[in-house]
Amino acid sequence: MATFVMQAMGCEVAALNTVHFSNHTGYRQFKGTKSSAQEIASLYDGLRQSYLTDFDVLLTGYAPSATAVEAVGAIGMDLRKKSLQQPGSFFWVLDPVMGDQGRIYVNEDVVPAYKDLIPHADLILPNQFEAELLSGIKILSLANLADAIAAIHRIYNVPHVIVTSVQLPSATSSSSSSSASLATADGSVSTQDHRTNALMIVGSTMRSDGSARLFKIDVPFLDCFFSGTGDMFAALTVARLREAVFAAEPTSPPLRETRAWVSPDHVLATDLPLAKATEIVLASMNAVLERTMLARSAELAKYVKQDEQDPELAGMPDVERKAAVEKRAYLRRTKAAEIRLVRNVDLLKSPVIKYFAQEWSQ
Amino acid sequence: MATFVMQAMGCEVAALNTVHFSNHTGYRQFKGTKSSAQEIASLYDGLRQSYLTDFDVLLTGYAPSATAVEAVGAIGMDLRKKSLQQPGSFFWVLDPVMGDQGRIYVNEDVVPAYKDLIPHADLILPNQFEAELLSGIKILSLANLADAIAAIHRIYNVPHVIVTSVQLPSATSSSSSSSASLATADGSVSTQDHRTNALMIVGSTMRSDGSARLFKIDVPFLDCFFSGTGDMFAALTVARLREAVFAAEPTSPPLRETRAWVSPDHVLATDLPLAKATEIVLASMNAVLERTMLARSAELAKYVKQDEQDPELAGMPDVERKAAVEKRAYLRRTKAAEIRLVRNVDLLKSPVIKYFAQEWSQ
Repeated sequence: MATFVMQAMGCEVAALNTVHFSNHTGYRQFKGTKSSAQEIASLYDGLRQSYLTDFDVLLTGYAPSATAVEAVGAIGMDLRKKSLQQPGSFFWVLDPVMGDQGRIYVNEDVVPAYKDLIPHADLILPNQFEAELLSGIKILSLANLADAIAAIHRIYNVPHVIVTSVQLPSATSSSSSSSASLATADGSVSTQDHRTNALMIVGSTMRSDGSARLFKIDVPFLDCFFSGTGDMFAALTVARLREAVFAAEPTSPPLRETRAWVSPDHVLATDLPLAKATEIVLASMNAVLERTMLARSAELAKYVKQDEQDPELAGMPDVERKAAVEKRAYLRRTKAAEIRLVRNVDLLKSPVIKYFAQEWSQ
Repeated sequence: MATFVMQAMGCEVAALNTVHFSNHTGYRQFKGTKSSAQEIASLYDGLRQSYLTDFDVLLTGYAPSATAVEAVGAIGMDLRKKSLQQPGSFFWVLDPVMGDQGRIYVNEDVVPAYKDLIPHADLILPNQFEAELLSGIKILSLANLADAIAAIHRIYNVPHVIVTSVQLPSATSSSSSSSASLATADGSVSTQDHRTNALMIVGSTMRSDGSARLFKIDVPFLDCFFSGTGDMFAALTVARLREAVFAAEPTSPPLRETRAWVSPDHVLATDLPLAKATEIVLASMNAVLERTMLARSAELAKYVKQDEQDPELAGMPDVERKAAVEKRAYLRRTKAAEIRLVRNVDLLKSPVIKYFAQEWSQ
């Protein structure tokens, strides 16, 4: 997901896979192997020894263990050296994949490993639960959310933060059993029962006094489980943030040559390159996911017909047959919701912006 | 290379990596691991158990051992079952990566492993040397070449063949030391000293009597080492052949629903979907490689300047310094010749055809 999205946006990508799985874990079954920390470090050494590490941006996502997170971190810190000499010449987008919907789905020692790395990153992309883990603040209101982001800036000194999906308890929340997730920061399928029917993406670029400069963007829910939206969001953000920084108002030195691409204090939250980038990222995501939902319906109808006629199932005892039918239906639904990416590249490159960043003062 | 090219052409791709290397072997140094036959088989099992193997086309390339070739072959034969029930519903493009320029660069037991698989493939893409290995015929003339392709059809009963790069000894061959390779079927860098200044791509779709139906396309040499041209050729061919088959003259059943997409005997060699596909594939390749050569010059100039100023080299003893400078220059040249793909997607999708298939009778 992340590799193709960045390539489609015109970036040359060196992809270092942290797992080699047959399919994403949303299917609830998969085969394959995880990369060891040693394998990750060795691949980077291979690039280094041949002068192949002149990267402008590093995007790091899921890593399967604390030692793997540390190996990825060592890569980030090595690349960081470049920007110490030439400010702005290297930018690290870190997606601290730890959990979602109130549940940690990595080993517990991954959490402190991420906490050690984040001070070296330029932009982090936690989901709501990960923002809670990192800030120590339970997010139940807009005020909590603002406090959590301020705390993340303060504790980790990380200049840019986007919380990729926020849903707050609301008086208008429905107790419907439908569930959805637009932009969770991982590849898993998850459910959530109590929610509003809107989703919020919030971000901030630190001011020079360390305070948060907050914007938020409201987007509609799409009533479907998607897998890979977190990686899609992160990859689009890599491309769009760089574009927005290159298009920023002229300063001396230009923003792209300043440390961590932090805009001067007078720039309003809604005018931040981070806000501009997020607007266009969300436009692409919404458009691609809408197309995916249309294609999903057609695909499901096809498979239901095919599965009903399967002679293999017809021969089974009733109990087994029922379990097999249910399992297969789940797998079919999961596949049908696979994001329709390659045939919708135009929507990645030239989306129509429909949801705009709003200033947000507490 | 192959994954991105197929995705850029609109294909959904499940990529099963047979090696996990830091870089291609043209750099003469790399780190990383090879997939075992068991890992390859396990990943496919993972796809199967979740109903994720409804593929239309399989493209197989380099595999690091005879057992890995067999594991890949088992996947092809499992997918083949679909087309036994529904002719044309599955098509296997097999690139028998074994060697180049007179040299085998895989274990010797890989050769018989490929010979066992090829009868199950629909299209194979040997380079000149691999065509010699498979046919047992040394290719020194057009007559030899025609015999070799006829032999490949006959021995392996494989309906489509493209020999992806042919250079014949010629009275006009220059003994210049410049070397080039447009479309070798592997990722390696190789040299060749005695050659003409044109390259030939030849192909054939078998007639119903088993005879070859030959076409050839002449393309100019580009005086540069490229790596990945074989995978690029194969991946473009997957997309373009399918398009050409879907656009073939109406028949009943349509060509796409006939076994191995073999055109009726009355279709001329130059009108074959295989010939039409190869024309457009070569148009894209030539255009992208021309752009690559332009970008290469600019990049090399930049690095030479940077390397000359490197204080690390300045401190070395003379002999070591000379060796380090030479090695670095080689690595820089190799990187500078990396195919410029992601920013030239338009040339993949909408190239201008400049080299046309010619009928070729012996």
